[in-house]
Amino acid sequence: MRLTVVGGTGKAGLGLCLRWARAGHEVTVGSRDAERAHVFGEELSRTYGLPLRGMDNASACRDAELVVLSVPYAAQRETLSELAGTLDGKIVLVVTVPLRPPQVREVHLPEGGSAAQEAAAQLGGNVRVVAALHHVSAAHLADLARVVDCDVLLCGDDPAAKQLAGALIEQLGARALDAGPLCNAVALESLTPVLLYLNRRYKGDGAGIRITGIPQNRA
Amino acid sequence: MRLTVVGGTGKAGLGLCLRWARAGHEVTVGSRDAERAHVFGEELSRTYGLPLRGMDNASACRDAELVVLSVPYAAQRETLSELAGTLDGKIVLVVTVPLRPPQVREVHLPEGGSAAQEAAAQLGGNVRVVAALHHVSAAHLADLARVVDCDVLLCGDDPAAKQLAGALIEQLGARALDAGPLCNAVALESLTPVLLYLNRRYKGDGAGIRITGIPQNRA
Repeated sequence: MRLTVVGGTGKAGLGLCLRWARAGHEVTVGSRDAERAHVFGEELSRTYGLPLRGMDNASACRDAELVVLSVPYAAQRETLSELAGTLDGKIVLVVTVPLRPPQVREVHLPEGGSAAQEAAAQLGGNVRVVAALHHVSAAHLADLARVVDCDVLLCGDDPAAKQLAGALIEQLGARALDAGPLCNAVALESLTPVLLYLNRRYKGDGAGIRITGIPQNRA
Repeated sequence: MRLTVVGGTGKAGLGLCLRWARAGHEVTVGSRDAERAHVFGEELSRTYGLPLRGMDNASACRDAELVVLSVPYAAQRETLSELAGTLDGKIVLVVTVPLRPPQVREVHLPEGGSAAQEAAAQLGGNVRVVAALHHVSAAHLADLARVVDCDVLLCGDDPAAKQLAGALIEQLGARALDAGPLCNAVALESLTPVLLYLNRRYKGDGAGIRITGIPQNRA
């Protein structure tokens, strides 16, 4: 599948790009800076022996089947504006957590309810938004030898988009669980500051969650 | 310790009362209806051979060292108004989840941010509010033979109150984890509709969470 990770040169995007490339997908790293993306893609290809390329965000999205939005919350609105038109008819997997530095261990929710709902409102009905991957440690993902020891909750209003996103997430090595409609992104996004708090409080190196009380093998 | 569970005749309160009584605490079941509470307490004592008593909410709170508020969100404000004065100087453990029936599998947050923050604002600075126990299945708690297979996140602005609440929670058989200041109750309360969704979606009998990526034995 042709996947683009917008903001892929950031810490959170790296592991996604590497793991999906390893799984056989055609992965493009998108960045605001085309030159930086290009160099980054070349470096990754060389270092990991995986077929990755980099280009500016808009070009990277134009050709993609699914786009992952992995930018800081403060940059989300502007980034999506710049991508207008390139995302029509596509699935956009929104990873954004509305953190408010420096209080990143306290929940702050945006006016639109959640970053994912704000993205969906901005993109319009022709783009299918799925929210996921808020609880996976970027460091764990980027360490390809590591087993990702957590579940990934995903939510969205389009069942087929959720199913496809879920399959991609399982290729990262995590269990993907459908957490309901897009309005439930509030719960997913607000849990991340709690996980960051738990990391500091209990000296964790990447707190995540597992869901108990449901059958191990899902329908 | 003298513990009172306001709304203790409800489904969620039962397991708390039984498990804490079994752990040796002096547990009082509070209800709006004094007669109902009394009968309920006598029945539980007889059935389980545990020392439990029931009385009206205000009387039950007056003598308590710690009060657990376990009422539906729709009844929280009025219940706390009726208890005014009886809670001064005490710790109040708020279990309330702001569900909006019939859409209990979708996140709905109250105006005050979270039910726990609303309770704290209503009760004033002389009452120490801790929010916890949103993710434990009431049915699992009420089955005394059952191991509670989940973590309990708790949050609040008073470290000593959190520590005491955490110790009580561990006596229920769960691991208690400090999830930060009271404003993080948003994350805890909004996760419950997601767990209810997961129960239906994957045929679970009481979805809960475990935190991964932190040391098993906490400081």
